[in-house]
Amino acid sequence: MRINDNFEKLPESYLFSTVARRLREYKEAHPDADVIRMDIGDVTVPIAECVLEAMHKAVDDMGRAETFHGYGPEQGYDFLRNAIADYDYKQRGIEISADEIFISDGAKSDLGNLGDIYSEESIVAVADPGYPVYADTAVMSGRAGEQDADGRWSRIVYLEGNAENGFKPSVPDVHADVVILCSPSNPTGAVFTRAELEAWVEYAEREKAIIIYDSAYEAFVTEEGVPRSIYEIPGAERVAIEIRSFSKTAGFTGLRCGYTVVPAALKGYNKDGEEVSLRKLWNRRQTTKFNGASYIIQRGAAALYTPAGREAIKRTIGLYLENAKLIRRSMEAAGFEAFGGENSPYVWLKSPEGEGSWDLFTKLLEEKQISCTPGVGFGEAGEGYIRLTGFNSPENTMRAMSRFVK
Amino acid sequence: MRINDNFEKLPESYLFSTVARRLREYKEAHPDADVIRMDIGDVTVPIAECVLEAMHKAVDDMGRAETFHGYGPEQGYDFLRNAIADYDYKQRGIEISADEIFISDGAKSDLGNLGDIYSEESIVAVADPGYPVYADTAVMSGRAGEQDADGRWSRIVYLEGNAENGFKPSVPDVHADVVILCSPSNPTGAVFTRAELEAWVEYAEREKAIIIYDSAYEAFVTEEGVPRSIYEIPGAERVAIEIRSFSKTAGFTGLRCGYTVVPAALKGYNKDGEEVSLRKLWNRRQTTKFNGASYIIQRGAAALYTPAGREAIKRTIGLYLENAKLIRRSMEAAGFEAFGGENSPYVWLKSPEGEGSWDLFTKLLEEKQISCTPGVGFGEAGEGYIRLTGFNSPENTMRAMSRFVK
Repeated sequence: MRINDNFEKLPESYLFSTVARRLREYKEAHPDADVIRMDIGDVTVPIAECVLEAMHKAVDDMGRAETFHGYGPEQGYDFLRNAIADYDYKQRGIEISADEIFISDGAKSDLGNLGDIYSEESIVAVADPGYPVYADTAVMSGRAGEQDADGRWSRIVYLEGNAENGFKPSVPDVHADVVILCSPSNPTGAVFTRAELEAWVEYAEREKAIIIYDSAYEAFVTEEGVPRSIYEIPGAERVAIEIRSFSKTAGFTGLRCGYTVVPAALKGYNKDGEEVSLRKLWNRRQTTKFNGASYIIQRGAAALYTPAGREAIKRTIGLYLENAKLIRRSMEAAGFEAFGGENSPYVWLKSPEGEGSWDLFTKLLEEKQISCTPGVGFGEAGEGYIRLTGFNSPENTMRAMSRFVK
Repeated sequence: MRINDNFEKLPESYLFSTVARRLREYKEAHPDADVIRMDIGDVTVPIAECVLEAMHKAVDDMGRAETFHGYGPEQGYDFLRNAIADYDYKQRGIEISADEIFISDGAKSDLGNLGDIYSEESIVAVADPGYPVYADTAVMSGRAGEQDADGRWSRIVYLEGNAENGFKPSVPDVHADVVILCSPSNPTGAVFTRAELEAWVEYAEREKAIIIYDSAYEAFVTEEGVPRSIYEIPGAERVAIEIRSFSKTAGFTGLRCGYTVVPAALKGYNKDGEEVSLRKLWNRRQTTKFNGASYIIQRGAAALYTPAGREAIKRTIGLYLENAKLIRRSMEAAGFEAFGGENSPYVWLKSPEGEGSWDLFTKLLEEKQISCTPGVGFGEAGEGYIRLTGFNSPENTMRAMSRFVK
């Protein structure tokens, strides 16, 4: 059997696995070191009481014939789709209906699997720096072409972020078919303004492209006037898919639940140039290759839309944002150039001494016993930067930051 | 954006959705009809007490910082991988280790996603009749070619089952790269013997093919000497991937958990003809496009490997098997030619009067108020047959069968 040769083009190890290995090696060599982890984007605040209650009840449901739930709808249960349509969209003045919302086991799955529905010849545009899954999945599916000496792929359009544009790339002067945007951005914490998103929607309309809008961190947007959904932009429902997750919003990284919005108005084109509903295609993909998210977890997610659930989210997000602010302030005081940390759990940092990302990683680990994620792992344009996250406890965040005080 | 044109080759609706629609229409026209559903392969017995307890405990774990679980390993937790390796393999004399086992959110996901790791030019062989997902995913990925007037695809190798071979296709006289086998079979209930599986392993070795062995129904094999795993055949670890699920074994259709075994010895070939580890490829696929199954559900699955869990599985499987036996006996008495219903929850039936599958569907629905799945939905070779399942309650199964008594 011939393998999919595109896999051999990929580096064997995923960024975060490499960081984990480096940490393990350091700890083995320094068993007494008090390393504070500020690298990984995993949450630490336990699941809210109302979610636990809903899941306990759902567990009980599964134990009685009258309330047992077998196969659920592949698209998700209406109780959750309706809650999302109402609270996340309708109440914010956005017209998205429940049947445009597809519940999944998480944003990463959907980000990877969406590639099934568009042509293999599609030109994919990704942010650099950006979440590595965007480019890696393009490589796996044969859409990336060949890699050059700098690690960049010949068929990918790179949307470069840098200090000048505040890590918010503007529309490119070349064509792309699929543009993957992330706002608030992982890893830089940059957040698109309304005007910037309007330019992207206009680009997609002009180029007959689609935007895959990863807004896994939308709950961190607390500033008035900053868009939380791309559908706040008129016309976006004709050009954009929006992906969201309960992972960072409500600590669901270990529970697994997210959702993807594929509006009814969104069309692609077939080989004859005719319009085809992408919602229909995604529905066919999901009904054939997926069997829905767990009933218990969907019940837990639905509890987030009760007043107690909303309150809990607000509290937790507030805590992570405080951490992020502290990190940004402390690192700036220590001489680092800082981005993000507002409307985002991520702080993106450049050392005043100009080291490379992995050197900075080693330096912070050895001198401060703090682990970070090397920026170059998010793309060439991330070289020289590191990412710190606000997901640790306030205590650990404070302890870590105090190590920078002279 | 150009779509993946292969999607337009597919019938828009999935078999089981069409059956559901026909049922809905019938019920709307006959609101008082007492329709007994024997079509869908969904379970009805509630989740075992020990699994509920384990999930309640896991829910509690998520509520405390000390026991909270964020991102888990994409491959699954060791507590579950070890239990599977020990009980499902080692204790049955099969050498499969925990790091060859990948936990997923269900067999359907893995069946669909495995296509990511092999070449697009691969020739896929599927059983006809067979689970529609096998052929549908081949179509989506462009491996099926074009459809002829009979509904068959030009590049798919069909492994035809019929009354003569007891719906157990033998190895073809043509080459295939990927052979998808299902035993006990959905929909026919046929179960491969050891000698038959040996012939398949030999075919795969000779053709440098891989076998994807769907054994979602292995727990229904109660007869001594009948293989439950393809790895009971020497050499199978060099040619086969095995897919299993807790769905039918333990009622997890709504909970979502399964696993896929990719042995370390299993190799594919790259474009230069060099051997490549498929385990490494699948690991890269899963770490990039999947974030692991839910912690709570994995805890529930692990409880199935306790004495109480094993006892519960035995009891439930016994109940479904009794239903299947009753169906087979009753339908034979009613003049139908019957297959399956032993070592399998499925009974595969041919009317003495030679109607087509959908006519039989209509006849059973209108005359007996019993819903079945039309055999032709599983492939051309299923025309003239229907599938009944043992997954309803004993009471409903008896009520349904009594409708055939003159």
